[in-house]
Amino acid sequence: MRIAVVAGDGIGAEVVAEGLKVLDAVLPGVETTPYDLGAARYHRTGEVFPDSVRDELAQHDAILLGAVGDPSVPPGVLERGLLLKLRFDFDQYVNLRPSRLWPGTAGPLANVKPGEIDFVVVREGTEGLYAGAGGGLHRGTPAEIATEESLNTRHGVERVIRDAFARAAGRTRRKVTMVHKTNVLTHAGGLWARTFAEVAKEFPDIATEYQHVDAAAMFMVTNPQRYDVIVTDNLFGDILTDIAAAVTGGIGLAASGCINPTRAFPSMFEPVHGSAPDIAGQGKADPVAAILSVALCLEHLGHPDEARKIEEAVATELSGRTGEPIRTAEVGDRVSVLVA
Amino acid sequence: MRIAVVAGDGIGAEVVAEGLKVLDAVLPGVETTPYDLGAARYHRTGEVFPDSVRDELAQHDAILLGAVGDPSVPPGVLERGLLLKLRFDFDQYVNLRPSRLWPGTAGPLANVKPGEIDFVVVREGTEGLYAGAGGGLHRGTPAEIATEESLNTRHGVERVIRDAFARAAGRTRRKVTMVHKTNVLTHAGGLWARTFAEVAKEFPDIATEYQHVDAAAMFMVTNPQRYDVIVTDNLFGDILTDIAAAVTGGIGLAASGCINPTRAFPSMFEPVHGSAPDIAGQGKADPVAAILSVALCLEHLGHPDEARKIEEAVATELSGRTGEPIRTAEVGDRVSVLVA
Ligand SMILES: CC(C)[C@H](C(=O)O)[C@@H](O)C(=O)O
Ligand SMILES: CC(C)[C@H](C(=O)O)[C@@H](O)C(=O)O
Repeated sequence: MRIAVVAGDGIGAEVVAEGLKVLDAVLPGVETTPYDLGAARYHRTGEVFPDSVRDELAQHDAILLGAVGDPSVPPGVLERGLLLKLRFDFDQYVNLRPSRLWPGTAGPLANVKPGEIDFVVVREGTEGLYAGAGGGLHRGTPAEIATEESLNTRHGVERVIRDAFARAAGRTRRKVTMVHKTNVLTHAGGLWARTFAEVAKEFPDIATEYQHVDAAAMFMVTNPQRYDVIVTDNLFGDILTDIAAAVTGGIGLAASGCINPTRAFPSMFEPVHGSAPDIAGQGKADPVAAILSVALCLEHLGHPDEARKIEEAVATELSGRTGEPIRTAEVGDRVSVLVA
Repeated sequence: MRIAVVAGDGIGAEVVAEGLKVLDAVLPGVETTPYDLGAARYHRTGEVFPDSVRDELAQHDAILLGAVGDPSVPPGVLERGLLLKLRFDFDQYVNLRPSRLWPGTAGPLANVKPGEIDFVVVREGTEGLYAGAGGGLHRGTPAEIATEESLNTRHGVERVIRDAFARAAGRTRRKVTMVHKTNVLTHAGGLWARTFAEVAKEFPDIATEYQHVDAAAMFMVTNPQRYDVIVTDNLFGDILTDIAAAVTGGIGLAASGCINPTRAFPSMFEPVHGSAPDIAGQGKADPVAAILSVALCLEHLGHPDEARKIEEAVATELSGRTGEPIRTAEVGDRVSVLVA
């Protein structure tokens, strides 16, 4: 098993180090290779993501990413040039974001107790408004226009919906909620709704429901307990998973996987949090999201037992927290001992 | 002053009746004319929104709308044919949604007290993904594609951003947060960001900030106190205002205005909640959102004192609530007495 590691910028290196520590403790001997990508490299060399590096990454079984980005880089450069390029080039069409209110964690919601929130968002990762299909005219004049186009294919919609149903089949509550905005985006919404209805027929024992994205955003706050598996488009998933992170105690704990289920290309696993330049280098970033990303990675690569071990160790770690400031390396040490 | 009243479907008629009761108490003698539009009319006549009715509505100073919609109508028919048509035909480019955690109201957030949340979202109302610019090919086949296009003009973006700054200038905290997704939607995002920076120069004493929509959705839950005026595009505004409604105690209290500030056409005021067919006709819907919509309407039509009176009466009404079931008409009676 060969894993490429992109520590990236800001706190990326610190949290990824703990992820790798835990990986080595739970499954010794995995070959990991560091790759230097992100804002620092961009500033040093002017390059965002050379093709030669992409070809090397393609040779790995998975990619572990820390965080990429810095306010000094113009918006879009690293996002389009690196993160989204990885998702699109490696056809990572399942953007998987589990949300749990972990034991010991006080989320912001008054009436929700740990253990009550436990759902996963299956966000489409290779289509929609992320296609990069936009343009503009008459820039800087009163006549300026700008467009963004959401591109959706039956191919892309069907495969991610089927993935969501397959995941629901392996869970306890067995329910899939499709989220879109069919009452306004009637073309894309129609494609999503019809495909959802058809794929649902293949899974007669999975319950289904549909919600508009605005309603789902509201329920995510007023009743997140209701969700099991949510499947939705790329941009709606981007927004909903950040609300999900908020109601489960913040992005410090949220892991994600950009997954190509066919394994034709490597999948990528990363904490949802960014590079947090304000606290970088101080050894106080929470590495739990990076550690949980390692668990998602192991699950994907066929090591579910090791993944469960990490999740249980994280549950123990979080239950034991007393509100003391976090020491990044100590969290990694404690979780490593628990999984070893 | 002539107000057209579209009670609409479900609880629409019940809550609008209370809004009109309060209107008559605070400013007697306003001429109101009922118009029959919505799911019921559609089923009865097959018509959604005849041009003749639109031309009549155009003769009024404002429109008060209850709620439109029913599950029996296919998605998009009433939304595109009536609600969005009104917004677009009457060029209601400011979709105004104030958010307050009212006294006496327990929102879902553990650490936020009444009075601490008080912001307003200025949502663009006539552009973006709501333009209806989409299409599809090969429907029902494996080769199907569907598109949705977001159309943005300097004209449209500039006027709504300027409106947001003008509103901030009249508030205490004087801050405007622009929300978009400039790191992915680089074309539309660039237009919004450049226009925002330019308009900001006209308002040197207003503080500004920018947030990506996913981050804003998160902060709306973890720190809604930080916002004063938010300006954003049509779809982002749709989602953010539902989160805002959730953190301030639900859409039962949220009012909105679809405003054409030039007054070339009538503006429209409506509760954010829908027609709620499940509780329709039982006299238990909360009319507060409809009553607050009347306040927004009066504010727009140049009666700020009457608008303030209604808001103060609503604050008193909400502070006095003891958790007893709501009786729609009694709420309207109590608020009417307070404003008279
Ligand atoms: C950084 C950005 C391009 C990215 C996205 O929009 O997908 C991020 O918000 C995420 O959710 O992974
Ligand atoms: C009903 C629908 C078309 C509408 C919208 O999307 O604008 C609603 O959600 C709203 O927020 O007013």
